[in-house]
Amino acid sequence: MRQSSLLSSTLREIPSDAEAASHQYMLKAGFIRQLAAGIYSYLPLGLRVLRKVEKIIREEMDKSGAQELFMPVMQPAELWKESGRYAVYGPELIRLKDRHDREFALGPTHEEVITTLVKNEINSYRRLPVTLYQIQTKFRDERRPRFGLLRGREFLMKDAYSFDTSWEGLHQSYLAMFDAYTRIFDRCGLRYSAVEADPGAIGGEGGTHEFMALAQIGEDTIVSCTHCRYAANLEKARSIAAQAPRSSARNGMKEKVHTPDTRTIEQLTKLLKREPQEMIKTLIYMADDKPVAVLVRGDHEVNELKLKHALGAENVALADAKTTVEATGAPVGFAGPIGLEIPVLADLAVGEMQAAVTGANEADYHFAGVVPGKDFAIEQTADIRNAAEGEACPHCEEGTLRFDRGIEVGHIFKLGKKYSEALGARFTDHEGKDQHMIMGCYGIGVSRILSAIAEQRHDDRGLVWPLSIAPFHVHLVPVSIKDETQMRLAEELYDLLTRQDIEVLLDDRDERLGVKLNDSELIGIPVRVVVGKLAASGEVEYTEREHGDKQVVSKDSALSRIVRLVHPDN
Amino acid sequence: MRQSSLLSSTLREIPSDAEAASHQYMLKAGFIRQLAAGIYSYLPLGLRVLRKVEKIIREEMDKSGAQELFMPVMQPAELWKESGRYAVYGPELIRLKDRHDREFALGPTHEEVITTLVKNEINSYRRLPVTLYQIQTKFRDERRPRFGLLRGREFLMKDAYSFDTSWEGLHQSYLAMFDAYTRIFDRCGLRYSAVEADPGAIGGEGGTHEFMALAQIGEDTIVSCTHCRYAANLEKARSIAAQAPRSSARNGMKEKVHTPDTRTIEQLTKLLKREPQEMIKTLIYMADDKPVAVLVRGDHEVNELKLKHALGAENVALADAKTTVEATGAPVGFAGPIGLEIPVLADLAVGEMQAAVTGANEADYHFAGVVPGKDFAIEQTADIRNAAEGEACPHCEEGTLRFDRGIEVGHIFKLGKKYSEALGARFTDHEGKDQHMIMGCYGIGVSRILSAIAEQRHDDRGLVWPLSIAPFHVHLVPVSIKDETQMRLAEELYDLLTRQDIEVLLDDRDERLGVKLNDSELIGIPVRVVVGKLAASGEVEYTEREHGDKQVVSKDSALSRIVRLVHPDN
Repeated sequence: MRQSSLLSSTLREIPSDAEAASHQYMLKAGFIRQLAAGIYSYLPLGLRVLRKVEKIIREEMDKSGAQELFMPVMQPAELWKESGRYAVYGPELIRLKDRHDREFALGPTHEEVITTLVKNEINSYRRLPVTLYQIQTKFRDERRPRFGLLRGREFLMKDAYSFDTSWEGLHQSYLAMFDAYTRIFDRCGLRYSAVEADPGAIGGEGGTHEFMALAQIGEDTIVSCTHCRYAANLEKARSIAAQAPRSSARNGMKEKVHTPDTRTIEQLTKLLKREPQEMIKTLIYMADDKPVAVLVRGDHEVNELKLKHALGAENVALADAKTTVEATGAPVGFAGPIGLEIPVLADLAVGEMQAAVTGANEADYHFAGVVPGKDFAIEQTADIRNAAEGEACPHCEEGTLRFDRGIEVGHIFKLGKKYSEALGARFTDHEGKDQHMIMGCYGIGVSRILSAIAEQRHDDRGLVWPLSIAPFHVHLVPVSIKDETQMRLAEELYDLLTRQDIEVLLDDRDERLGVKLNDSELIGIPVRVVVGKLAASGEVEYTEREHGDKQVVSKDSALSRIVRLVHPDN
Repeated sequence: MRQSSLLSSTLREIPSDAEAASHQYMLKAGFIRQLAAGIYSYLPLGLRVLRKVEKIIREEMDKSGAQELFMPVMQPAELWKESGRYAVYGPELIRLKDRHDREFALGPTHEEVITTLVKNEINSYRRLPVTLYQIQTKFRDERRPRFGLLRGREFLMKDAYSFDTSWEGLHQSYLAMFDAYTRIFDRCGLRYSAVEADPGAIGGEGGTHEFMALAQIGEDTIVSCTHCRYAANLEKARSIAAQAPRSSARNGMKEKVHTPDTRTIEQLTKLLKREPQEMIKTLIYMADDKPVAVLVRGDHEVNELKLKHALGAENVALADAKTTVEATGAPVGFAGPIGLEIPVLADLAVGEMQAAVTGANEADYHFAGVVPGKDFAIEQTADIRNAAEGEACPHCEEGTLRFDRGIEVGHIFKLGKKYSEALGARFTDHEGKDQHMIMGCYGIGVSRILSAIAEQRHDDRGLVWPLSIAPFHVHLVPVSIKDETQMRLAEELYDLLTRQDIEVLLDDRDERLGVKLNDSELIGIPVRVVVGKLAASGEVEYTEREHGDKQVVSKDSALSRIVRLVHPDN
């Protein structure tokens, strides 16, 4: 491809709302353009990368035995009402009416459609299991679209759905997807971690993993072990009953302490000269409209998702001040577990504490030397806090936990029967009995991968694409298009390379070398070949974008290096 | 691919609203499934055909120098208001509001988006011309979706847009697209005709051609010459001043004839024993709210599109009865041109008539022997009728016109400055002057091609796909999957073929041969190889779906035939 006719301008200025480096560079280098908030056009450079990612996904999905199909964007609202999601999905679901006033949704996902489709096509165990996938545009009306392709309103996803006759079958289908995802992200050159995750809005009965691309800009915290392969989303990361810290308090001797106007752990720490891990935070929560006292250690944070699971509640939320005052008989900031009449739920770490500081349920007073289980009763002990950086790994107990930020690029779920029951997808098993299919669902944010890789692979001059998904393999830059010797050599190289299925962008623009090289580094094609004065002796300058060392080599040597790089198996 | 795991059931029964053969067979053979009226899912078989059509389009578009990009489905309504189309597009445009109450349209076409994009990327003649294309899902809320993929509400289109500095440049871009379209439809195995067409709602100042797939079910009438290459949509087909028929009336002797209750040409023909071509039909039209008398010969039909152009009117429509009575002073059915006070517009053929029968503007009376131009004045003579089958070709005047039915599969337009002016897409020319870009737009109904080909290529047993876009090249059918010799040979053939990039569907289902063969003919894969009892001697039955002759051949012979067929250039 000749750059003079390429529809992509490198920009000098970018919109101020482009915060992420990936977003800035993809705009600057001419990969994408915004049409509306969270809605982008792909210019030829961006589309080439997108298509390569799609191709990798397709190859690995096919290899895993999944079959590709293609479902519509417009989904009848009735299907969503049948599954029960129409009411609960909220404003992220884009809704519309057709000319006959029938309601439709623009698909953010396709569980309803695929379940209905499979229900009509398959009715016997003989034709199961089956895994189906599509690469399709999805719609989600994000409240706050941002970071370019990272959180858009119209985006490309690969979504797959498995249908099995048993939970064991689902587990096999799930593992096949896990493996395919690993190969896909590896081939895309992504640094990522597969973490345990919470199923969230999609629901379902089984396990779930998120594939998180590691990046500072990521909106999720990933917890991983320094020793073993344990990794989880912070929402889901298990925490173990941390060893009780050595306490400076006299063990088991409860004493009342005057703590005027001291309401926070920080203030208490200063006043009493004790560590936060010697204190118990008592928080009053409403669990489905019933108050409950929730205890975590002073240096820990409540994880509301775990809390919800521990209580078996639909909803949990911090109680308002009025309820807290009613439950404790004291102003906010002086709550403690001693003498409460509501149930007390304590984190595992609280159960291990020997002598703790707690609120006294009385203004301006705390207790010190409190022994959980002795000085107050605990109804239930459970893991209800966020794991903390540096603590022991809950899996191997040898390593410690480290925190990273991540971008979700893939997500796999064991759905179970949620949709097959709601929509009536049944099969006849080998004994002739009617059963519901056991489903899994598996997503990859195709367009989001572009941003995740750009986020991981850039420097202060521009993007650094891996060869597997780069828009072109080679950027061929003649210094002067008016120099016949240079252009002859450049054209010769262009022919030789393209004939070997190597994708070359030839910078045939009448621009200064500085402009061309700046643009080249911005775009980030893996190999650059500059054809300059040494063209007369058949030599060129060869540079790999990632490493940056310039080397003067003969034309033939450049050729053979490139061929080896692009086609290592030939 | 093994058929036992393929997500496609052949159906015994199909919905009664599937009228077209293509629709019936694509449902029956498991290519598509309806989700809602005019909205379809593609099962794996259908998607494979769709992807092959896409690939052919992409290759030919790239070869023509067009660049692929990808624009969003959701388009801000403001853009459509800027171009003026938001108000005029009507209920076919699917509209929605986002969570912030901003209006969007689901793109039925992308003129507004691409013009805005190019306007921001290109500002100099140095970077023109450029032709851009995408393959994208489009939305059109058809009042009456029908015929499966032929007239859907969500469908796949290839749309391309050219930007030039001059009309001559546009003409070159247009020709390049014309040629690419010819190659695309040829490669898809379509029988089609490129016809002159009317620009319709897209508007624009230049020429336009439709590519019509010939099929009885088509909703358009294509007029073509038996002698030369002239072809046009009936809406647009020119008609020449037909030679006046020999008249049985006494020339030029006007006489009043009593024609009680005789209001139609048919009734007049019976009563007066004259031919329809000896009569003049007088129709009162409203042209932008002004009445006009429109004359065509009794055997001809008014073409309202031509009428509109001839009158230079925005809208033309038949006047209501009241207006007709007022203008003629007679009941409907007795209008004639003599003595009218409104302008008279006559078709070319009327101007040639020697002695005609017309209404007398008086109940129950006509005139005979009327000479146009002598007995009444004609304000304007023009081509305002539909061409008629069998008449002389307006281009070569040697051949005669034949009529066919056609399905529009492609459409190319010279748009000119319509959108570049409305949306401000300007460039600086080589003299430094500011000019508007000259645009063309070019569409192909990608999903519609599937239906058009299925419509052209089927017999009473099922579909007959051309090799270039068939879902598989070879259907390999072992008679009994329980017979080891048969299965060993079938598996061997499967391996040998797939290793040579030949796509094979292996029917490994435990079904009777009759069921397998019926399904095979329904699906319509070009080559079928049945492995039966002769497997013991290494022989198989080879059949090409199109011709149907069964031949017993050796395994090697079958192999080499197939390889020659699929890879003729190897």
